[in-house]
Amino acid sequence: MSTRTSDSHREVTQMSTHEQTEMNTHEQADTGGTQQVSVGSERLTALGASLRLAVDGHYAEQRAHLRELLSADGTFLRDPSMSVAEARDWTRGAIQALVDRGRGGAGFPTSVGGDGHVAAAVADFESLALTDLSLTVKVGVHFGLFGGAIVSLGTDEQVQEFAPRVISLELPGAFAMTEVGHGSDVQSLETTITYEPDTDELVVHSPTPTSTKTYIGNAAEDARMAVVFGQLRVAGADHGIHAVLVPVRDSSGNPAPGVTTGDNGAKGGLDGVDNGTFRFEQVRVPRTMLLSRYGGVAEDGSYHSPIDNQNRRFFTMLGTLVRGRISVAGGAAQAARKALSIATRYGMQRTQFTAPGRDHEVVLLDYLAHQRKLLPAIATSYALAFAQDGLLQDLEAVQSKPAGERDQRAQRELETRAAGMKAVSTAFANDAIQTAREACGGAGYMAENGLTELRRDADVFATFEGDNTVLFQLVAKGLLTNYKEMWGDLDMFGMVQAAVRTFGGTVIERAAARPVVERIMATAQGRSESESVLERSWHIAMFEERERHVLDSLAQRMRTAGQDESKAFEAFNATQDHLLMAARTHTDRVILESFIAGIDRCEDEGTAEVLGRLCDLYALSSLAADRGWFQEHNRMSANRAKAIVPAINQLCQSLRPIALELVEGLGVPESLLGSAMLQD
Amino acid sequence: MSTRTSDSHREVTQMSTHEQTEMNTHEQADTGGTQQVSVGSERLTALGASLRLAVDGHYAEQRAHLRELLSADGTFLRDPSMSVAEARDWTRGAIQALVDRGRGGAGFPTSVGGDGHVAAAVADFESLALTDLSLTVKVGVHFGLFGGAIVSLGTDEQVQEFAPRVISLELPGAFAMTEVGHGSDVQSLETTITYEPDTDELVVHSPTPTSTKTYIGNAAEDARMAVVFGQLRVAGADHGIHAVLVPVRDSSGNPAPGVTTGDNGAKGGLDGVDNGTFRFEQVRVPRTMLLSRYGGVAEDGSYHSPIDNQNRRFFTMLGTLVRGRISVAGGAAQAARKALSIATRYGMQRTQFTAPGRDHEVVLLDYLAHQRKLLPAIATSYALAFAQDGLLQDLEAVQSKPAGERDQRAQRELETRAAGMKAVSTAFANDAIQTAREACGGAGYMAENGLTELRRDADVFATFEGDNTVLFQLVAKGLLTNYKEMWGDLDMFGMVQAAVRTFGGTVIERAAARPVVERIMATAQGRSESESVLERSWHIAMFEERERHVLDSLAQRMRTAGQDESKAFEAFNATQDHLLMAARTHTDRVILESFIAGIDRCEDEGTAEVLGRLCDLYALSSLAADRGWFQEHNRMSANRAKAIVPAINQLCQSLRPIALELVEGLGVPESLLGSAMLQD
Repeated sequence: MSTRTSDSHREVTQMSTHEQTEMNTHEQADTGGTQQVSVGSERLTALGASLRLAVDGHYAEQRAHLRELLSADGTFLRDPSMSVAEARDWTRGAIQALVDRGRGGAGFPTSVGGDGHVAAAVADFESLALTDLSLTVKVGVHFGLFGGAIVSLGTDEQVQEFAPRVISLELPGAFAMTEVGHGSDVQSLETTITYEPDTDELVVHSPTPTSTKTYIGNAAEDARMAVVFGQLRVAGADHGIHAVLVPVRDSSGNPAPGVTTGDNGAKGGLDGVDNGTFRFEQVRVPRTMLLSRYGGVAEDGSYHSPIDNQNRRFFTMLGTLVRGRISVAGGAAQAARKALSIATRYGMQRTQFTAPGRDHEVVLLDYLAHQRKLLPAIATSYALAFAQDGLLQDLEAVQSKPAGERDQRAQRELETRAAGMKAVSTAFANDAIQTAREACGGAGYMAENGLTELRRDADVFATFEGDNTVLFQLVAKGLLTNYKEMWGDLDMFGMVQAAVRTFGGTVIERAAARPVVERIMATAQGRSESESVLERSWHIAMFEERERHVLDSLAQRMRTAGQDESKAFEAFNATQDHLLMAARTHTDRVILESFIAGIDRCEDEGTAEVLGRLCDLYALSSLAADRGWFQEHNRMSANRAKAIVPAINQLCQSLRPIALELVEGLGVPESLLGSAMLQD
Repeated sequence: MSTRTSDSHREVTQMSTHEQTEMNTHEQADTGGTQQVSVGSERLTALGASLRLAVDGHYAEQRAHLRELLSADGTFLRDPSMSVAEARDWTRGAIQALVDRGRGGAGFPTSVGGDGHVAAAVADFESLALTDLSLTVKVGVHFGLFGGAIVSLGTDEQVQEFAPRVISLELPGAFAMTEVGHGSDVQSLETTITYEPDTDELVVHSPTPTSTKTYIGNAAEDARMAVVFGQLRVAGADHGIHAVLVPVRDSSGNPAPGVTTGDNGAKGGLDGVDNGTFRFEQVRVPRTMLLSRYGGVAEDGSYHSPIDNQNRRFFTMLGTLVRGRISVAGGAAQAARKALSIATRYGMQRTQFTAPGRDHEVVLLDYLAHQRKLLPAIATSYALAFAQDGLLQDLEAVQSKPAGERDQRAQRELETRAAGMKAVSTAFANDAIQTAREACGGAGYMAENGLTELRRDADVFATFEGDNTVLFQLVAKGLLTNYKEMWGDLDMFGMVQAAVRTFGGTVIERAAARPVVERIMATAQGRSESESVLERSWHIAMFEERERHVLDSLAQRMRTAGQDESKAFEAFNATQDHLLMAARTHTDRVILESFIAGIDRCEDEGTAEVLGRLCDLYALSSLAADRGWFQEHNRMSANRAKAIVPAINQLCQSLRPIALELVEGLGVPESLLGSAMLQD
């Protein structure tokens, strides 16, 4: 067990200087005599604290600060036995408490009183997910989606006018995009926004039953204003999807004239979020309520836009909202970390069955089967943490520039990565939370132990901000077109055509920020079968080979099948599972690279060694799942494939003694676990 | 599309004779012109009705009858927006409604007014799972666990005294086995049952905090009496686990003297079941309250039992309760069928994205990715249905004999199969319901659409009646010992020793009821690589090879590692994942055989052909998941492994046109789907 914390690991030393003398005191017995340090109000093992700093990445200080604020008292933990009505009330109070603590302006421009850091706001959102996911989603709906749409799609004047009232929570908002008939296919929304020159107004209208806005957070009770997406018509011409601000309730909470609100009622979770419906019956708003950064109506009633092509305009507008997907990916990953922290801590205290030749019962986490449930999931949580940190860096790099000056290719890569991470993280979270629930047996099913509400709440993360299957298709499209084609929603014909026209052999582009990957591969000459399956260069090679071959053969299949435009759907459809695998393997490769880069950044030798074992476990788990594919494609011998699972078992056993340190590293303070069984 | 219903298919013809003339009338447009028949109050496609008969198996008539009763009105469907208190009230009323309709005596001996068919009672339980799982579990707790324990463990006199009041619901009961400290390890329960000769009473006591009975259904509010499991002590001697009837509340609902009840409160689901705790403070009951079929105290205060060996007695007692696991397996499978029925029907009505070259949007289920989510799960549902039917046959065969005359080997095989089916079915159900939820997008997350409560409720099926990991270990133990060793809970040393001592190469024993499997294998000489992956004999061979090799190598590993008793735990632990695979592959092989036998029993050619394709899809899905293993062990060439996924895709596309028929066959009446979105 490695628990060294070198002096060079500045942050730990810095945070804990005045506590160093308290080491090895009363907690010694619980932690096998490892060093203890104070991090804020927490006592952690030195290794746990060091791992956490690595995991927290570029926003470590900010994450630490918000964790302290959130765990200071019970304000932000909800009693899971609340009714829907009580949960909504509680959530309303909790979001106000955040604003009261000055957290409303995160991510907003400094010109309106915000902190100006979009990516930092996502980091805040992630930390918030350690408390309650209803609160987190409500924050996301109001500040992120509603406020974010105003900031991204509005003119400077509109931002100045509305954003301060969003930050102060004076103007609770909704993001009204999804309709009964269309969720994934945003371009087909039916709501109409029609300019009327006579009154200089926009008429917002729901022309059909299927055009009803639904599943809209804040719609059922709280929203006073909504960003409503619909088809803009000016002087008889269609200009495609635009967003308009529509007051939906007056200050007493009564629906505005022509607006019908509905309540989605009981859901699979997120009880504290009042999801509901909007219908608009010829609702009139001033022309200036159209969010006009990418397209607006001038005083003379003419339409204008900086982007002529309607498709391109649509995708550009949607692209600016990429932060939502990144937030959902990060929030889901945090929920998984919380569940894994609960289950691992429980697995370290719970015993069952007496081992032969022993007089005491076996601790659950000493069983290999139990380790196999939790430790690979913990390793994946680490992997996702580094990838998410990289994604935040990319987001900051792209969005810190003014809208007109952004690198289009970087923007599309960001969207591709966000879509992939959202799909991978949310699917992982649902699996991991369920695994954690089952690993705690009957206790795991009791709401007071904190796992069942997590499971309920995180469930829909797989759906909102884009269905995961659709998102993977977007990733595949970005790859097939090498980010050259217009980005956006699912476009089957475009995807097939791109494969037919532009594809000429895949080159895996290692991200510029990953020189360490290049270095590892450059020094790994002459790989052979005798090499250990723990060799990092082999992991990289396998992840790259998998992505490259899947993508190449996908393009080949599409080229063969898609020459005929009338058969484009069949060509797309026949290769759909192949397409999903391309997206997944690409995302997995990016995640692995991020992990490797994160280890490289870690200055503490002992911590880096532990991260290395976690990276091995993550990589081998991924390779194990696809080892059928690797053998079929002659990328792996039978002997080598056979060696993977035993190596996974050994890694689990080697990580077992530092399980506490590993979950401390995941960054969930004990005071936020909200699990009665851990307080016994 | 094959929709033939041959005249020889008696049941369909019988049920629908007077309806044949109505065929191809108003529903024609919805079903592509296929034949329609009436089954009870339902209108089904002829193929759907025929598939359902095959799936319903040996209890078809009974299942059809109960389905009619349950779907007659809304009595048995619960509003998912109810609070926990409302749900408990509703469930209390619904169980009374069942008794009022004469359903209380299912499975009880005819001598006390029951119908005498244990397996038929399980079939009833399964059908009930199509309504509400809280109601189902509450029925299971009272009639199955509480009533079943009295019938199985009580003397004839005790059965005569108590069973009629169970059947009438006059004496609501609880099954108090699990304690805070021990769930899976029943032999280590701490509750004591001590005989006091002075008063001729038994003293039931909870000596420690961890001996508190917990998660006990009916304990929080309704139970008047409980079957309490504890360590029996008579005259200073320990006789191991026994069960005693303890009055826990008086007729006004007040706790009995010395009994403390508690409420587990909010759970992950099953809101209508009042789970709670019991503590006993020197609670005295008459000596005759000990359920004494397998061990009791005579009038003279001496202990007596027909089974001398304490271990053997314990396992025999527990073995009689096997029905609980079989019920849970069947209930979970029905919940999965309901979820798949909802998602498939939704997938047939929901459209999204316009295909290139078409002017209408694509129906979700026309996407290959959507088919891949739902159709293999439907195929697995069919497979599990046939396996469950076989399990009920086995249960009836074993338990229809008096307790003393039962075939011990058959009993152990039944327990093995029940454990395996419980683990496989409940894990499948959780996956399938989640898949169904996600396949319905945001709509799937709305409680009114019927999926989220299913997901919540079915979750714990993976835990109660035995944690799935522990159950698979029991299966492996049965296999390693070839059912020769004593059966029971996890016994690590016994398992390792059995492998060391008795194992001499595995012989896969095809169940006697499966001559068709022998026939297929006998005629399949000279299998070659050129053969289609759809060849049934190849599926059988692969399933058998997988099971045999995994089990052989497991025994070999244990023999090598387990010579030293002091290392028995390490030997057991190091092979735990291998052990779990042995259990799973065995169970999968039994399921495949059951499916094949079910097809063989189907007299209608068209129906059998469809079942054959479903069986292909089931078998190939299983082989695809393990194709890494098959290649590593030279059981499958790379080319053959590569051919599996394309074959799965083709099967999905071939089954897509009859998706409605397939879900009709799963036997969930439309009136029980409880899904608002399907009524639009």
